[in-house]
Amino acid sequence: MSEPGAMKWWGWGDPARTPHLAPRALSSLRQLLGAPERRAEPVPLGEVRIGESRLSKRARASLEGAVGSQHLHDDRESRILHAAGKGYPDLIRMRSGAAENAPDAVVYPASEEEVVSVLGVCAAEGVAVVPFGGGTSVVGGVEPIRDGFEALVSLDLGRMAQLSRVDRRSLLAELGPGLRGPQVEEALGRSGLTLGHFPQSFEYATVGGWVATRSAGQASTGYGKIEEMVVGLRSVSPAGPVELKAVPASAAGPDLRELLVGSEGVLGVITSATLRVRPVPDQRRYEGWIFKSFPEGAEAFRQLEQEGAAPEVARLSDEVETLVALQLAAGNSVGRRAGRAYVKARGYEGGCLAILGFEGDASGIARRRAHAARIMRSAGGLGLGTRPGRAWERGRFDAPYLRDALLDNCIMVETLETAGTWSGLMDLYAAVGQAIRKALEERGTPALVMCHVSHLYRSGASLYFSFFAAQEQDTALEQWRAAKSAATDAIVAAGGTITHHHAVGRDHAAWLPREIGTVGVDLIRAAKQHLDPTGILNPGKLLPDEGGEG
Amino acid sequence: MSEPGAMKWWGWGDPARTPHLAPRALSSLRQLLGAPERRAEPVPLGEVRIGESRLSKRARASLEGAVGSQHLHDDRESRILHAAGKGYPDLIRMRSGAAENAPDAVVYPASEEEVVSVLGVCAAEGVAVVPFGGGTSVVGGVEPIRDGFEALVSLDLGRMAQLSRVDRRSLLAELGPGLRGPQVEEALGRSGLTLGHFPQSFEYATVGGWVATRSAGQASTGYGKIEEMVVGLRSVSPAGPVELKAVPASAAGPDLRELLVGSEGVLGVITSATLRVRPVPDQRRYEGWIFKSFPEGAEAFRQLEQEGAAPEVARLSDEVETLVALQLAAGNSVGRRAGRAYVKARGYEGGCLAILGFEGDASGIARRRAHAARIMRSAGGLGLGTRPGRAWERGRFDAPYLRDALLDNCIMVETLETAGTWSGLMDLYAAVGQAIRKALEERGTPALVMCHVSHLYRSGASLYFSFFAAQEQDTALEQWRAAKSAATDAIVAAGGTITHHHAVGRDHAAWLPREIGTVGVDLIRAAKQHLDPTGILNPGKLLPDEGGEG
Repeated sequence: MSEPGAMKWWGWGDPARTPHLAPRALSSLRQLLGAPERRAEPVPLGEVRIGESRLSKRARASLEGAVGSQHLHDDRESRILHAAGKGYPDLIRMRSGAAENAPDAVVYPASEEEVVSVLGVCAAEGVAVVPFGGGTSVVGGVEPIRDGFEALVSLDLGRMAQLSRVDRRSLLAELGPGLRGPQVEEALGRSGLTLGHFPQSFEYATVGGWVATRSAGQASTGYGKIEEMVVGLRSVSPAGPVELKAVPASAAGPDLRELLVGSEGVLGVITSATLRVRPVPDQRRYEGWIFKSFPEGAEAFRQLEQEGAAPEVARLSDEVETLVALQLAAGNSVGRRAGRAYVKARGYEGGCLAILGFEGDASGIARRRAHAARIMRSAGGLGLGTRPGRAWERGRFDAPYLRDALLDNCIMVETLETAGTWSGLMDLYAAVGQAIRKALEERGTPALVMCHVSHLYRSGASLYFSFFAAQEQDTALEQWRAAKSAATDAIVAAGGTITHHHAVGRDHAAWLPREIGTVGVDLIRAAKQHLDPTGILNPGKLLPDEGGEG
Repeated sequence: MSEPGAMKWWGWGDPARTPHLAPRALSSLRQLLGAPERRAEPVPLGEVRIGESRLSKRARASLEGAVGSQHLHDDRESRILHAAGKGYPDLIRMRSGAAENAPDAVVYPASEEEVVSVLGVCAAEGVAVVPFGGGTSVVGGVEPIRDGFEALVSLDLGRMAQLSRVDRRSLLAELGPGLRGPQVEEALGRSGLTLGHFPQSFEYATVGGWVATRSAGQASTGYGKIEEMVVGLRSVSPAGPVELKAVPASAAGPDLRELLVGSEGVLGVITSATLRVRPVPDQRRYEGWIFKSFPEGAEAFRQLEQEGAAPEVARLSDEVETLVALQLAAGNSVGRRAGRAYVKARGYEGGCLAILGFEGDASGIARRRAHAARIMRSAGGLGLGTRPGRAWERGRFDAPYLRDALLDNCIMVETLETAGTWSGLMDLYAAVGQAIRKALEERGTPALVMCHVSHLYRSGASLYFSFFAAQEQDTALEQWRAAKSAATDAIVAAGGTITHHHAVGRDHAAWLPREIGTVGVDLIRAAKQHLDPTGILNPGKLLPDEGGEG
């Protein structure tokens, strides 16, 4: 059974929407990568391979008792729709029709009580549970891994999509885990409020997923990462509920919020989150700047942030990303040509595009823009006006659609992110780019690697890499693994974090010991052992496989 | 052996400094409280009751091996100096000469390796360990509680007082746990940097203590609470070291920083912290404002904070605290009288004093002051210029000295703090004040209760209460316990946190289950069981006694 708003089972977004990839851009990309003309469509739905549900009759009946029989789905399509997230390996697998791992059923609780009942049944019956929000994980976070359990269900939180409470004076809202981005903004918008959380997955990702994975929105420099917004939280696990009340700050021991935020479904199911909200800004002004080099632009961003002058959105593309963005950009080509001529005349050709997005009231924006512009100019930036900002804003959620079009054309496209301190940022940038290029070059599939700085902090920033290569025909997953491993090793060696906002999931689990040490990993295991003694919650995620490092 | 910079064993601060309590202020306080003329000095050091060290010869020799024999002290004075923190019950106990609980020895490691060795010895020998920074806990956090262990040592981190690294570009500094406030500022000052962390205990409290207790400085509205400053951390426990590298943000699972920050010596010993720092501000401008009522002032503060206009220091006294501050204020009495006349003429007599402290460069301060002043005035505030601000700044670390003088005069004085959302703040204020007044009124010792709002957050603020009453002669601890219990029950009932920055320690442990639930408490126990399987680390703190709620 297909649900309203469900994505393509094999790719991103609305099945009715066909992503547009300009033929000229495709052909120049092919040329650059040495990628042969080749296409490979996903297999038809009817050819997807999926086994019989292995859920026992007794477990099935108990789960129906927990959520109501109409809210347990074990038809083929529901199971396929919950068989994978939206990472590159997920898409490779799904496009080829490999859904043998699909959950044995999907259950849709409507309340925390029903989640408690489902977990009780699953703990008693030995059924693994994969919490499922928007299913947008790009790190294998919702991959159904049985890990010794005979059966596995997907716990879809889509029915827990209520805005329970708005506290206008304290600028807090209590939100259900199943609310998707547009639903959040619509519900809060009725009170003149916004969460200000706009990750690229905004259209599908959910509150529970954001909180469980430490999501960052594109305006996080201004609004904060999701963990900075979580004031109160409810989570349930087989050991019982944990309620962390909404207080602005506390010294009452360790902050368990931060143990549950980012717990990726392994320590509990988030059933409610009280998040900081803000008044909807009167205006948004997104504008473009250009720098002669990436380090120069990064230095300007550091000053912006450390002088308290950073806007809500701050994003700096390296030279390659700037070039690609210009190539792919839709819009008025006459204006674009005029813009290029201006940039060239001023000596900034081949430079790095920055987007600054200010939100607020007119006078506040004017004041903050003036402050930021002084810093940008004295650091070597050239203002390009609002046209590049508007273009970026129009396309801000498009990349995942484009990825499907590239995969149709057998072009590998993957993204990964890290964060590091300002003093080490350019070394981190160089090391990761080089590692990806080297790994793919060695396989005979030279890569195009691009990067942007975004999500600024006083102590550093995140780096977001995208890379492209000709897809290997039968060994696409090995090819991906080689690039991913090389990049993550390089990140660790250069002092970055293994993930800034995509989470650990399956893909980064092997590196967690190098992020937090073995005592740290065992500490999370001890917490899991307490909260989920039979280990039913999202097996195989976050924690590395025992006995090895993944 | 007395150490350089050691405090009075029976009270606060430099033994050579005699706190000044104006006779007129004392007599009007006595009158207000119905407190009889009575004085009680602390017993002389020679009369303090302390038993023989119960450390076994073998354990003592091993500990000497770990830190060097000159760094293990078990003389009478060293043990007495580590026998208590600086909470009201601690002072009552120490002034009466009751140091039977004193640690059996004090060890002074110089490095993380030595801390590891000490913990190894203590785990093997079954010796309890109380980590000791400045010894300024006001919640029983360093009370030597044996909890079944035959022997107990105090682990004084005073020798681990190095500034290991400054990263000027990333505005980070790696600090040893034993650095006291003035040492931190002096060391950072050499690089033109400041931590901006100025709690009332600044002169004695340490980096490790701040991190272990979620400390808040008086300028935390601008600089953040200590947990907002911790970017990297090292901690050791019997299970081994945990190193959390300094990255500006991460999505690599649960944030273990937030499990170790606030762990109060129960989960490990903090051996190093990488903290966010800032350039030393060019100027500080602290100024006074007055409001006709406490709710009116609080509403102004909410607007300041939510509109991004709050200064580094923001503090609003209620009517009683304002009156007492004026009574106790030193300084030019002519100017004070003139100020009072002005306030009276404008209809603000009996109002509430606010302090706003701006730090930065001259133009930034001017711009921010103008913004804040617009909000303050339109919310009903009257500007009083810099005189009250300077007076507050001069006296900002004085209150604990004054407490000793009041105790000499048999006047009970205690402080406690909470935090709540803006929408519930005035109800929380009323409930806590009423609970304290009622509890002490019932004992025949009517209280004077005063409060200030400080430490602003978008979602709420902290409330800091001080209260005074005639001290009961033989039942001072029961009297204190009655007031403390009533206040904490009221806090929980009104939705506040049991502590905003004093930590849990011994005094709040019984209420922890009502703060984070029994599953939450057991989760911390599970973490402790993993990190400290024999339970040697700071027994009896943070976690409630098992079997009951404290």
